[in-house]
Amino acid sequence: MKFGGTSVADAERLRRAAQRIVAKREAGNRVVAVLSARGRTTDFLIAEAQEISPNPDPREMDMLLSTGERQSCALCAMAINDLGHRAISLTGSQAGIVTDTSHTKARIVEVRADRIHDALDEDSIVLVAGFQGVSTTKDVTTLGRGGSDTTAVALAAAIGADICEIYTDVAGVFSADPRIVPGARKLPVVSFEEMLEMSASGAGVLQLRSVEYARNHGVRIHCRSSFEDGPGTVVVGEEETVEQPLITAVTHSTEEARVTLKGVPDTPGAAGRIATVLAEGNVNIDMIIQNEPVTEGDRADMSFTVPRSDLGDARAALAPLAAELGIEVHTDEAMGKVSIVGAGMRSHPGVAAKVFSTLGDEEINIEMISTSPIKISCVIAGDRVPGAVQALHAAFALSGSETIQAEKPFGRFT
Amino acid sequence: MKFGGTSVADAERLRRAAQRIVAKREAGNRVVAVLSARGRTTDFLIAEAQEISPNPDPREMDMLLSTGERQSCALCAMAINDLGHRAISLTGSQAGIVTDTSHTKARIVEVRADRIHDALDEDSIVLVAGFQGVSTTKDVTTLGRGGSDTTAVALAAAIGADICEIYTDVAGVFSADPRIVPGARKLPVVSFEEMLEMSASGAGVLQLRSVEYARNHGVRIHCRSSFEDGPGTVVVGEEETVEQPLITAVTHSTEEARVTLKGVPDTPGAAGRIATVLAEGNVNIDMIIQNEPVTEGDRADMSFTVPRSDLGDARAALAPLAAELGIEVHTDEAMGKVSIVGAGMRSHPGVAAKVFSTLGDEEINIEMISTSPIKISCVIAGDRVPGAVQALHAAFALSGSETIQAEKPFGRFT
Repeated sequence: MKFGGTSVADAERLRRAAQRIVAKREAGNRVVAVLSARGRTTDFLIAEAQEISPNPDPREMDMLLSTGERQSCALCAMAINDLGHRAISLTGSQAGIVTDTSHTKARIVEVRADRIHDALDEDSIVLVAGFQGVSTTKDVTTLGRGGSDTTAVALAAAIGADICEIYTDVAGVFSADPRIVPGARKLPVVSFEEMLEMSASGAGVLQLRSVEYARNHGVRIHCRSSFEDGPGTVVVGEEETVEQPLITAVTHSTEEARVTLKGVPDTPGAAGRIATVLAEGNVNIDMIIQNEPVTEGDRADMSFTVPRSDLGDARAALAPLAAELGIEVHTDEAMGKVSIVGAGMRSHPGVAAKVFSTLGDEEINIEMISTSPIKISCVIAGDRVPGAVQALHAAFALSGSETIQAEKPFGRFT
Repeated sequence: MKFGGTSVADAERLRRAAQRIVAKREAGNRVVAVLSARGRTTDFLIAEAQEISPNPDPREMDMLLSTGERQSCALCAMAINDLGHRAISLTGSQAGIVTDTSHTKARIVEVRADRIHDALDEDSIVLVAGFQGVSTTKDVTTLGRGGSDTTAVALAAAIGADICEIYTDVAGVFSADPRIVPGARKLPVVSFEEMLEMSASGAGVLQLRSVEYARNHGVRIHCRSSFEDGPGTVVVGEEETVEQPLITAVTHSTEEARVTLKGVPDTPGAAGRIATVLAEGNVNIDMIIQNEPVTEGDRADMSFTVPRSDLGDARAALAPLAAELGIEVHTDEAMGKVSIVGAGMRSHPGVAAKVFSTLGDEEINIEMISTSPIKISCVIAGDRVPGAVQALHAAFALSGSETIQAEKPFGRFT
């Protein structure tokens, strides 16, 4: 069981999480729970660090930030003990989460779960501080933002858990953001592949990295609400999905910015140099489009999108190269992205046409397009995103039970 | 170097502590610094725990409280790195502070300082989270309130430090509390024995336990201000003290309560049973007076003092026994204590008489008296404490240079 920061933010919520854990134990399960830092704790600690240093040392940042989850676990253990059960809290290090030495964005290299097994054998409920581990050189590391999901999935894999339940403040994964589409449907099951595309294109329920880890290790994830009962969404292997709808969900993001480079020399290596300076500046590039020049020797245009928060870094990273190569840099901060995701579209080539015509009917201009076998994303003006999500959700009839079913291309029906 | 909570309470103070550490390093020293939690952090965490549980599990309390010092150390390491020096923060566990398993009041059993030595050899400044260690069963433990002083002294002993500097918000150890006696003198040197008596009788500069540890391991302590330069007070072995004044200081406490038991059976074991129930109730008894009955078979009276904060626990602990033995329990919350401490009084039997007559001249009633070879304490009404301190400070001429010198009974003059 994994509880996010909002699920343990105050004493009442933390006690409710403790009750959920105890109920699961009393139903006959052995329980390991991973907790995030309470509410805004991590933001508060980051602010403290920034007050001290403009560029805090990553090792020390990890030492600082890892304390928040430990506090949550210790407090939750107290609450569980008061409910008449035995609980012990473990740091990431005590839980055996061994990582590489990349401070602030460490990767898990091994989970040595002996101490967890010992505690479970002694009939204890085990609470593990999320988001952190111990490096191979015995320093405290953190896994990066959202790392607690990854902790939970990694522990579930290591101890052979039946299921990894991720408790958040939403009831599961929806066919679209219910704040934009009131008729959005809670999806009972999605495949890892769909969930990966959805996480990558704006669905905030699960961290992309934890979904990858779960797919690679075959960990069943159940996303559910910490504030209400009832099932959420189970993320499983594609061979386990019972239905295979043409389209599963519409996702979106309104935090995109576009960078357009005009006059890129049409020489081998120019695009590579551009990508390199952006990577060195820690800028995450999403979609890239390059228009090849019609005549040889002419200059090309290149556009790409970045998270809006990375735009300043992108400008700074590009400036020297742009000056050197004579490139004009144009930026647009008010971009958004709308995507449709569905494993069934693999065998249905008409989906893209329907997406484009739906947006066309709404007079929404598509600026950039990118596709994968199970996803179509369109970059559009940021203020047109809600309308686009509503139109696509309606066009593919994602509300209620009239969902269009695709033929299931493979897998067993259970 | 050890910095208390007020010395790292905000960004400016923390940076100043970092500058002091760096200055010490630049003067050619190898530096290990122990930090406390910032300002009210520990109180805040205790309040969080009490919001969750009326009686928090001690193991989990230690997991929770130990985070505060880690935060201080990580932030200070960032500040030092910004000053161009290398610093690493270590948890109590990483620093090799091994304790017994008594959660919330653990005793240090061993210091394995290998990692500290390695870091010093790599030319790093080492910051160690105070107040905590790791138990022999690999759980996080804390040393109890004020435990950071003990951490500093224990590390100084383990690594063979030349000196253990304790930085606080006062400039050193004074001949009396300067808030009560404006002419109080800062003492350049006091002996361990005097410092022990002073800490035990109300001088808050150093934790009693850290002074004991320093005496037992021969660690020189220098108490000084983190807010101003200039020397503070050095605490050393008696054989090293140059001067041996008759009286070194007047200390006091206004947080005393007195418990009087009337009608204690004059049978062997009665006092023992009383002391046992109080110990089991975690009540710290200070002075004890018992009036033996004049006629055999009569009942005795017994009085003792406790910290005022323990009075409720004392009443609760005594109630069943008092009912069983037919003892009347009377309490007085408004008591204080004034003490004079000085190694020189060993050879001067007239000191007690002077104390009593000084208080008598002020018409201050002495309720209880206790003595050690180098201390005389008197329990008096709480509201008479400031006057008593002023009168005794004047009577023994403790201001300025006219201090009365006793003959030095032993030791070498250097």
